Amino acid sequence: MSMKSTILGLSLALAFGVVNAADPVFSDAELKAAASLRDAALTGNLSYKILESLTTEVGPRMAGSPADARAVAWGVAKFKELGFDKVWTEPVTFPAWKRGVETAEILAPFPQPLSVTALGHSVGTPAGGISAEVVRFATLKDMMEAPAAALKGKIAFIDHKMAKSSEYGYVQQGRSRGASEAAKKGALALVIRSVGTDSHRLPHTGVMRYEENVAQIPAAAISNPDADLLTRMLARGKPVSLKLTLGAAEAGSYTSQNVIGEITGSDKPDEYVVIGGHLDSWDLGTGAIDDGAGVAITMGAAEFIKRQGLKPKRTIRVVLFANEENGLLGGAAYAKAHEAEVAKIQAAAEADSGQGPAIKFASFVAPEALPLVKQMYSVLAPLGLAAGENDANPGPDMGALKALGVASFGIGLDNSDYFNLHHTPDDTFDKIEPKRINQTAATYAAFAWMAANAPISFGSGSAALKKGAK
Amino acid sequence: MSMKSTILGLSLALAFGVVNAADPVFSDAELKAAASLRDAALTGNLSYKILESLTTEVGPRMAGSPADARAVAWGVAKFKELGFDKVWTEPVTFPAWKRGVETAEILAPFPQPLSVTALGHSVGTPAGGISAEVVRFATLKDMMEAPAAALKGKIAFIDHKMAKSSEYGYVQQGRSRGASEAAKKGALALVIRSVGTDSHRLPHTGVMRYEENVAQIPAAAISNPDADLLTRMLARGKPVSLKLTLGAAEAGSYTSQNVIGEITGSDKPDEYVVIGGHLDSWDLGTGAIDDGAGVAITMGAAEFIKRQGLKPKRTIRVVLFANEENGLLGGAAYAKAHEAEVAKIQAAAEADSGQGPAIKFASFVAPEALPLVKQMYSVLAPLGLAAGENDANPGPDMGALKALGVASFGIGLDNSDYFNLHHTPDDTFDKIEPKRINQTAATYAAFAWMAANAPISFGSGSAALKKGAK
Repeated sequence: MSMKSTILGLSLALAFGVVNAADPVFSDAELKAAASLRDAALTGNLSYKILESLTTEVGPRMAGSPADARAVAWGVAKFKELGFDKVWTEPVTFPAWKRGVETAEILAPFPQPLSVTALGHSVGTPAGGISAEVVRFATLKDMMEAPAAALKGKIAFIDHKMAKSSEYGYVQQGRSRGASEAAKKGALALVIRSVGTDSHRLPHTGVMRYEENVAQIPAAAISNPDADLLTRMLARGKPVSLKLTLGAAEAGSYTSQNVIGEITGSDKPDEYVVIGGHLDSWDLGTGAIDDGAGVAITMGAAEFIKRQGLKPKRTIRVVLFANEENGLLGGAAYAKAHEAEVAKIQAAAEADSGQGPAIKFASFVAPEALPLVKQMYSVLAPLGLAAGENDANPGPDMGALKALGVASFGIGLDNSDYFNLHHTPDDTFDKIEPKRINQTAATYAAFAWMAANAPISFGSGSAALKKGAK
Repeated sequence: MSMKSTILGLSLALAFGVVNAADPVFSDAELKAAASLRDAALTGNLSYKILESLTTEVGPRMAGSPADARAVAWGVAKFKELGFDKVWTEPVTFPAWKRGVETAEILAPFPQPLSVTALGHSVGTPAGGISAEVVRFATLKDMMEAPAAALKGKIAFIDHKMAKSSEYGYVQQGRSRGASEAAKKGALALVIRSVGTDSHRLPHTGVMRYEENVAQIPAAAISNPDADLLTRMLARGKPVSLKLTLGAAEAGSYTSQNVIGEITGSDKPDEYVVIGGHLDSWDLGTGAIDDGAGVAITMGAAEFIKRQGLKPKRTIRVVLFANEENGLLGGAAYAKAHEAEVAKIQAAAEADSGQGPAIKFASFVAPEALPLVKQMYSVLAPLGLAAGENDANPGPDMGALKALGVASFGIGLDNSDYFNLHHTPDDTFDKIEPKRINQTAATYAAFAWMAANAPISFGSGSAALKKGAK
């Protein structure tokens, strides 16, 4: 049991599975409908088809790029085509960024080109590139511990190898913070080993941030095989010089849209379950696993409820968030726009870690709703999900809602191969397996149906959840 | 038993394993030395280190590129560093080719960039590219059966999917011949699905040829995921237009070198066993499996014999062939330069299908030498090799020697994953597994030692082999 579930007052009786006569329960008919929805969705292929459409007809859709508007138009049209009851958009404004040319080559002692990509929001180099000696560090921490001015006139190389998915949060700090830390020690540019678990010649991009009042230096990632190569060259003990050329630049303010589709509730249309994914992707691939999958899983799950002839009591709202990749901006805009309705949001759950399968079901609800969570879990467990604690992470774009005290769910997905593809050109539709995405869509469909039909509120806006979210 | 071994007069007695008192045999000491060499090389790591050096210190080395001369210099220096008794080069002259810029993008109905690479020796497009509608064919054959002028003003797309390594010879015809066949029907350009078994966003290059008196149109390969994407777009039934821009061009005549190193024989220094690989690689990767592995396996095998303190009776000659990729030109030059010495070549065997492990041992020898082949096989079999027939293919660059009636050996390598990497940027050193390349080097070391010490000639230049090679 986690600290948070204790804070939320989860009683021992509930923890040990004793059901009290006064506990809220789903009707047998609702549970049966959820189970039959779950089973039917397992072979539905609806999310698979939606994802095929998005990756084929839109493809790469970096926030603020010309494809951003095409993605928004696709989202609106697809919701309408699927027969959602209500479809609209809400604006999200942010600074856009463009990639431009990107090349890297070893100049000496062993001239070779490297596979490189700029990190999101990096500045560019001068047109003629930056040529300098490379200084390697095993980790960001090692670089930060180097003497002041140790990188003066040099290109910093953070060679932190990500061995497995669970290391992402730690290793990606070199990507997000490395440039400013390198600049503090006088570096001219930063090159990092790709934050990814594959061994292909496809570098992983991702967003970076500059600290205020620190020189802004260009930052790029080389592929894992290229990092291996550079490390082997450096191991020979002689100076290695690299030329890096990036045409990256900020591209002015851009207004995109959160795209929203609703299946209107029959009993409580103004209360809603919000599920979704983010519509933007990086520009290198076609955003199949990140996050076309989340878009397709949640659109497909909601639509599948309707196709089964089921009418949810509360509204099911699917939100396709704008610009997650450059700082969860669609999620922040959504939370701000809907702050006044917090108590009306029955539940929030984003899908943003690939195609699945779903492997875990965690909640973040008021104590009185926990018996319902147990019943929901009993419907999902046959899909192979483990039970989580009452401390769910509802996904990056829903984090802002949880912070407001919105009841949240975390449907954990198997991400063991996710970081092979994440943020690379290789994030394409051919990697999607119908069996995997169907299972995830089935999980979301059954979950959303039950959340919409729960006999009581899950506690959004309550003191318990506001406190627990802190 | 194959037709060829019958032609060569393989007796039934030999086929059934009966040994005659008059048969030539290796001494027990020689067989023991071969077995101990084999076992020691299995953990030698010598070829692994040589390949690390080539891929790190030279990297991509396309024939006729600036890296060609660096590769030749590396070969000469490495042979000397390893202590080969004699090191020299022999010239190979050929037309060079350069790659230049290469981009492809869908213009309509769904604008997206594609991952593309020019085929070797393709002409370029005009600087502004070629934009035209795409017409898809499942295979080269299907395209050839299309009506005359069916491709007038269009870009031909051969979408032939290579499912497994054994299909390479068949599927690659679309790459080598497709452009001229498309041009005959009026096409402006050819795009093919990559000839490879992977699903990564890394297109496979490879050589193509223009037929005489047919218009020369640009030819390029897109990656397998991109071919999937294009096929999905076309399946929607509306015209798909593509823009292809290639800066490829012929680059004048270039003289490279076959690089040769010898370990001089103690008894018959003017007779020799020739092993080797090709030194050139495509420019996209660092040529680790194609064919740095062959270079390293054979250099390492010969050197390992010496390091074990063994003195071969005949000379062991390692040839690093120039420009295999654009038409086996180093192999042809070597055969021409050494035509007069055919009878002195005890055996020929190239390594050019990756890192191994070795899985098969085939010969092409005169009938009287077959008992020796059986003994050689008995030493190699514990490494897991199957016995082949007496119709060996000695590898692409040695084919010209076999055609002259040189006794040849075919050491078959496991190539089940070879065409995931072949001719792509992903052909890099990180893909090499010490255990695999060590086993292959052990096979070549034991083979070369036994071939050099065989009590009789394997029959090079004999009537039987000259006839059998036809």
